[in-house]
Amino acid sequence: MFENKNDKQTPLSELGEFALIDHLTKQFEITQKSTVTSIGDDAAVLEFSDKQIVVSTDLLIEGVHFDLSYMPLEHLGYKAVVVNLSDVCAMNAVASQITVSIAVSNRFPLEALEALYSGIAKAAKRYNIDVVGGDTTSSTRGMIISITAIGSAVAEHIVKRSGAKPNDLLVVTGDLGGAYLGLQVLEREKEVFKVNPQNQPDLEPYTYLVERQLKPEARNDIISLFKALEVIPTSMIDISDGLSSELLHLCKSSEVGCDIYEDKIPLDPQMISTCEEFNVDSTTIAINGGEDYELLFTIDQGDFDKIKGNPNLTVIGFIKESSAGAHLITRSDTRIPIEAKGWKVFNA
Amino acid sequence: MFENKNDKQTPLSELGEFALIDHLTKQFEITQKSTVTSIGDDAAVLEFSDKQIVVSTDLLIEGVHFDLSYMPLEHLGYKAVVVNLSDVCAMNAVASQITVSIAVSNRFPLEALEALYSGIAKAAKRYNIDVVGGDTTSSTRGMIISITAIGSAVAEHIVKRSGAKPNDLLVVTGDLGGAYLGLQVLEREKEVFKVNPQNQPDLEPYTYLVERQLKPEARNDIISLFKALEVIPTSMIDISDGLSSELLHLCKSSEVGCDIYEDKIPLDPQMISTCEEFNVDSTTIAINGGEDYELLFTIDQGDFDKIKGNPNLTVIGFIKESSAGAHLITRSDTRIPIEAKGWKVFNA
Repeated sequence: MFENKNDKQTPLSELGEFALIDHLTKQFEITQKSTVTSIGDDAAVLEFSDKQIVVSTDLLIEGVHFDLSYMPLEHLGYKAVVVNLSDVCAMNAVASQITVSIAVSNRFPLEALEALYSGIAKAAKRYNIDVVGGDTTSSTRGMIISITAIGSAVAEHIVKRSGAKPNDLLVVTGDLGGAYLGLQVLEREKEVFKVNPQNQPDLEPYTYLVERQLKPEARNDIISLFKALEVIPTSMIDISDGLSSELLHLCKSSEVGCDIYEDKIPLDPQMISTCEEFNVDSTTIAINGGEDYELLFTIDQGDFDKIKGNPNLTVIGFIKESSAGAHLITRSDTRIPIEAKGWKVFNA
Repeated sequence: MFENKNDKQTPLSELGEFALIDHLTKQFEITQKSTVTSIGDDAAVLEFSDKQIVVSTDLLIEGVHFDLSYMPLEHLGYKAVVVNLSDVCAMNAVASQITVSIAVSNRFPLEALEALYSGIAKAAKRYNIDVVGGDTTSSTRGMIISITAIGSAVAEHIVKRSGAKPNDLLVVTGDLGGAYLGLQVLEREKEVFKVNPQNQPDLEPYTYLVERQLKPEARNDIISLFKALEVIPTSMIDISDGLSSELLHLCKSSEVGCDIYEDKIPLDPQMISTCEEFNVDSTTIAINGGEDYELLFTIDQGDFDKIKGNPNLTVIGFIKESSAGAHLITRSDTRIPIEAKGWKVFNA
């Protein structure tokens, strides 16, 4: 994972901008019937007939959002797409197109961009989306990735952050804290590697956590599940910055409060054992660690029977009046106010 | 123009990411009926009923696409929007929304971002578009701007690069070469300023050229004109990289050739006199200089009467069979093959 197995190094200047874009994008097939015109014109043309359109965008900067010393470029490409698709899922919509803009310094050879685009292509295939446009340019330093995802849904199915109401159940998908802990494992191995480059890291005990960090997935399976179960959440948000931060966003948008229960927060066994090894509190990690890309949503209590027993879904609490505030009820039955401790990019 | 008149310097870390986004985006009003949900959710929600949607995106990097030593931040914000709107115009569509993502290093105070967003807001107002989403984050160096523009048109009005056919007339809007020459003027003044910071530049003789560079406009007026004249171009592209480069794109997409006439290329008098002063050939500048953001399009000869005599439109040549190639017919009646000499970002 820490090796560069790529022997060939072709300078980007050998191709020129348009040839480079052609070379990188020729692998993208168009499969969506909503894509009318794709790469190769001034803009992409899309058609969704009577559906509403959902648009989400993200900007990822090397050294701020990712570290190429442990993030293989193919994984980075994959993850950059997933991060955006997760936002589309959080609207209860189905993503169908992305645009991809990349800027790289001349330190990157063509083969690096090929690896990145190969990850983008894998995500596009896995999530059944078309790459319909973008931009490829040079940067003065490092790699910059900007992706915009476009999806659609019928108006009645769109779920915002703002629809939660008192007594609704708070539900999360999957388990939490794994991606953050995976990052801690990778950071530790990077330090070991710096001291002794001959030392091959043994990541075997942390496979799940590292995969959560390096190859997260967007929960579009849950969007399909909602359709199958005939459930429309009353509000929804994706967990990119950590549960506590997203809970507060959701409560603020919906003008409500909430109680969540420490003993209900879903944790993976590997996450628990690694927290013990790192001597950190698993609840703190699960609540404040980001990048899990799970969904946090609320449903009317009347829908509980529809989701009950589904292993992908865990009820962690319920919505209260705004005046009640947002609290975590600990295992020892203490009420702790929830504070946003998510990732702050401007705190240098 | 070269001074920093801003006294107050508020570090971005004082606000935090979410407060910063709130602060910068609160000035944006929603005016488009196609905007259902704007900033503040996981994604924007839009609705265009029976129209097709047009999506275009651009990534602008400090030191590659702009130089803050002569580009005031407010102008930069304005121009970053215009560049994307120009792509939407080139599809014969009407832009209605943009998303704006910005990354800045900690060298930028809050007031710098306020100036940038003020320019973005001015463009949004001038072009009647909503700012519906985006991302604000930190960079390790410099400023990075990524904008995605969304527009719409009924399917029959969408114009691609690929519809030109032999005997169609080649038409350009406005005049060419001004923006590139404006950049040369600014570069020269920057060098003078480096040697003698007390020397106030006299840009008076170059007002038009400098404005073409610093405050270009997207030709949405031409899109309205097409509607009024009941003209649908057979193909269209915007002139961002230079006429020669765009002509070749259009010919390649449409699988045609063309002849254009040197004496027909529209030039501004200030552009001609400044070319003389700089001792450069005005045709070379008009053909290869980029960033004019004019439109290059083709129309059926039967539509000539509709556009004849309009001061915004100049017929510069006509479309030929692909085998004829693309040529410039000089004033001395020499046929010169057109080569793309547009801006190559990867040629360091």
